[in-house]
Amino acid sequence: MKPNFSLRLRVFNLNCWGIPYLSKHLADRMKRLGDFLNRESFDLALLEEVWSEQDFQYLRQRLMPTYPAAHYFRSGIIGSGLCVFSKHPIQEFTQHVYTLNGYPYMIHHGDWFCGKAVGLLVLHLSGLVLNVYVTHLHAEYNRQKDIYLAHRVAQAWELAHFIHHTSKKADVVLLCGDLNMHPKDLGFRLLKEWTGLHDAYLETRDFKGSEEGCTMVPENCYVNQQELEPFPYGIRIDYVLYKAVSGFYICCKTLKTTTGHDPHSGSPLSDHEALMATLCVRHSPPEHDPSFTHRPAERSPLICVLREAWTELDLAVAQAHWWAAFAGYVTGLGLLLLAVLCALVAGGGVREVAILLWTPSVGLMLGAGALYLFHTQEAKGLCRARSELQHVLGRSREAQDPGSESQPALFLGQQEEDRAEDQ
Amino acid sequence: MKPNFSLRLRVFNLNCWGIPYLSKHLADRMKRLGDFLNRESFDLALLEEVWSEQDFQYLRQRLMPTYPAAHYFRSGIIGSGLCVFSKHPIQEFTQHVYTLNGYPYMIHHGDWFCGKAVGLLVLHLSGLVLNVYVTHLHAEYNRQKDIYLAHRVAQAWELAHFIHHTSKKADVVLLCGDLNMHPKDLGFRLLKEWTGLHDAYLETRDFKGSEEGCTMVPENCYVNQQELEPFPYGIRIDYVLYKAVSGFYICCKTLKTTTGHDPHSGSPLSDHEALMATLCVRHSPPEHDPSFTHRPAERSPLICVLREAWTELDLAVAQAHWWAAFAGYVTGLGLLLLAVLCALVAGGGVREVAILLWTPSVGLMLGAGALYLFHTQEAKGLCRARSELQHVLGRSREAQDPGSESQPALFLGQQEEDRAEDQ
Repeated sequence: MKPNFSLRLRVFNLNCWGIPYLSKHLADRMKRLGDFLNRESFDLALLEEVWSEQDFQYLRQRLMPTYPAAHYFRSGIIGSGLCVFSKHPIQEFTQHVYTLNGYPYMIHHGDWFCGKAVGLLVLHLSGLVLNVYVTHLHAEYNRQKDIYLAHRVAQAWELAHFIHHTSKKADVVLLCGDLNMHPKDLGFRLLKEWTGLHDAYLETRDFKGSEEGCTMVPENCYVNQQELEPFPYGIRIDYVLYKAVSGFYICCKTLKTTTGHDPHSGSPLSDHEALMATLCVRHSPPEHDPSFTHRPAERSPLICVLREAWTELDLAVAQAHWWAAFAGYVTGLGLLLLAVLCALVAGGGVREVAILLWTPSVGLMLGAGALYLFHTQEAKGLCRARSELQHVLGRSREAQDPGSESQPALFLGQQEEDRAEDQ
Repeated sequence: MKPNFSLRLRVFNLNCWGIPYLSKHLADRMKRLGDFLNRESFDLALLEEVWSEQDFQYLRQRLMPTYPAAHYFRSGIIGSGLCVFSKHPIQEFTQHVYTLNGYPYMIHHGDWFCGKAVGLLVLHLSGLVLNVYVTHLHAEYNRQKDIYLAHRVAQAWELAHFIHHTSKKADVVLLCGDLNMHPKDLGFRLLKEWTGLHDAYLETRDFKGSEEGCTMVPENCYVNQQELEPFPYGIRIDYVLYKAVSGFYICCKTLKTTTGHDPHSGSPLSDHEALMATLCVRHSPPEHDPSFTHRPAERSPLICVLREAWTELDLAVAQAHWWAAFAGYVTGLGLLLLAVLCALVAGGGVREVAILLWTPSVGLMLGAGALYLFHTQEAKGLCRARSELQHVLGRSREAQDPGSESQPALFLGQQEEDRAEDQ
């Protein structure tokens, strides 16, 4: 590699709003997206909410000459909605499906059926190893009373942990996607603190908002428009994040957003704005080593956010246990009711009433049984994230105060974890 | 690190057969296991089928002085059953839950409810980074007609892929667990070929079978005893596998198995035998570089096993699609039946019969609907594993025949993948 080595990378990210039969002008928007991507010829185009595999196949055919490599990440019942188009060969890919992703009985929200995930692509460019992640976290339907907060925090933790464990030999890490979190939200801070990723919007000196100057998430999106973050065009939930891991330096030259409005019909490409970032990777100068290792003095923000996330998950664990117990009692009640009805039918008394009540009591028992199983699983998933957080918290504390690394401190940490687990 | 550096690692692995209320003498066996582990003082004890968290907590309390670090991997509804006890501090841990793990309606087998997973521990020993994996794959209930074969192959692939992506900076990789596969089974060959892991049993010069000379999996286990692999004491489904990734050399000094029979009552520790391996890690001599990179000439076995696995998964995808379609039709039929019954009740005709048929038709519709969702998800999971396999197969072929790396060949590979996806 030459000493004056420099790699320029143009990246596109868009939540495509691609719900078959429900999203407006989907076919037209997909066609225009294909034209746009072909015209712009990015290095990488990362898309979310491409729910239908037919739409992916359509884009793939259309983009083949410009982007010979492509992948669609399959998961869950509907799918992850994630796909990627690359001008460069994809060396490897894999994915991680989030353990927690909402509730199956919230059918009108539908996230549970999607199998939300993070996809990983490994690219080799000019001798560099690039790990590119694309993801879409659980939506936020009500910011004031967000019942999915703990699930989104757990997803952010799993995302951070997945990046941490799979990017150890990468030179450059890039994460794009719809995180459904504002820049100051707990999950986003947790992700940034634990991975050391930089936010392209905050790092670039050349930001250009979309031509119409509209918000990043227009009105037809669920997010509350009133809570504006310090972003000139509105709130931010879509991100381009990056870091260079060792011996390299990465910066964002330009970041642009576009709605991709059709000059004729005036309709945008999606209900989200697209992000277009031009990144530049160079050898890091000797005095500047960007490799991310938390030094003790820098650990305080990490410890604070880990504690905050731990508390949030701890509350959610208690709530999941409560729901599991409640559902367990109702299952028992349904079973009892069934037994009484069987006895009534056998005894010949109020036969018609007993038969009429049969369906609701079977339904009650099965429904509550399913709820019990679901919330037991939810509690297990939350406990898992909490214990991982607890472990990182313990190690961060030890690193900040090396004196505490003695055996008794280790035991104390274990006991603290025990207490949490016993709850 | 000294030039004559040498690290000795004593590892214990056991499938504990710890089903609460069902497994015989569980409390007594747990007590004896704790005594045994304390007495032997291994570096690492990796356990499977510790289904109850109470049993884990019991062992943890008992083993605390000898093994100050411990972790229980939580997942699914029942749990993964995996836990680990370590004499050395655990730096990091995480886990991956397998996408496919049997069928929820096979309640008598129960694997689906367990959330089978692979757990990862990162240890730093004498300046070395050790990635230790522990896992338990789906059981094999009928070797002649194994309906879980494709799921186990997909699990083996996910396990191999997880190890591949998370161990890139590890010096030593160690995998222990109950793989529920014989040494010549497709999934095991796939795992070994893709990860480059070595089998301690085949590599050691000092193997000592358990004191009674019984099989590795005694009679009360599900596996067919007649199909003996070339193992002096019977079939093998529990393994210790390892590799050194770069600059190091690892070998298995001794491998012992024990049933851990109680001299008084005569009862063994579990329905599986325990594996006890003494591993030795050294700097690799200059002429011997064990770092695992498939050279073109060595790729043929990998390509063969990838093809075989691809075919197996392809058949399973077709089957999952068939089941999803069948369940979809039955759901429709249930819905139609419900509509007819409603019309009959409204019309006043055969009222009692209609009410009687209400429960079965609602049940039919809901059951078939759930089956449809499950098999749709199964198909997605199988498609995911198949497309990952397809990609590795394509790249392996390209590496074997670099001339084919041209653009047309890439397109041909894509088209081949397309065809598979369209099926």
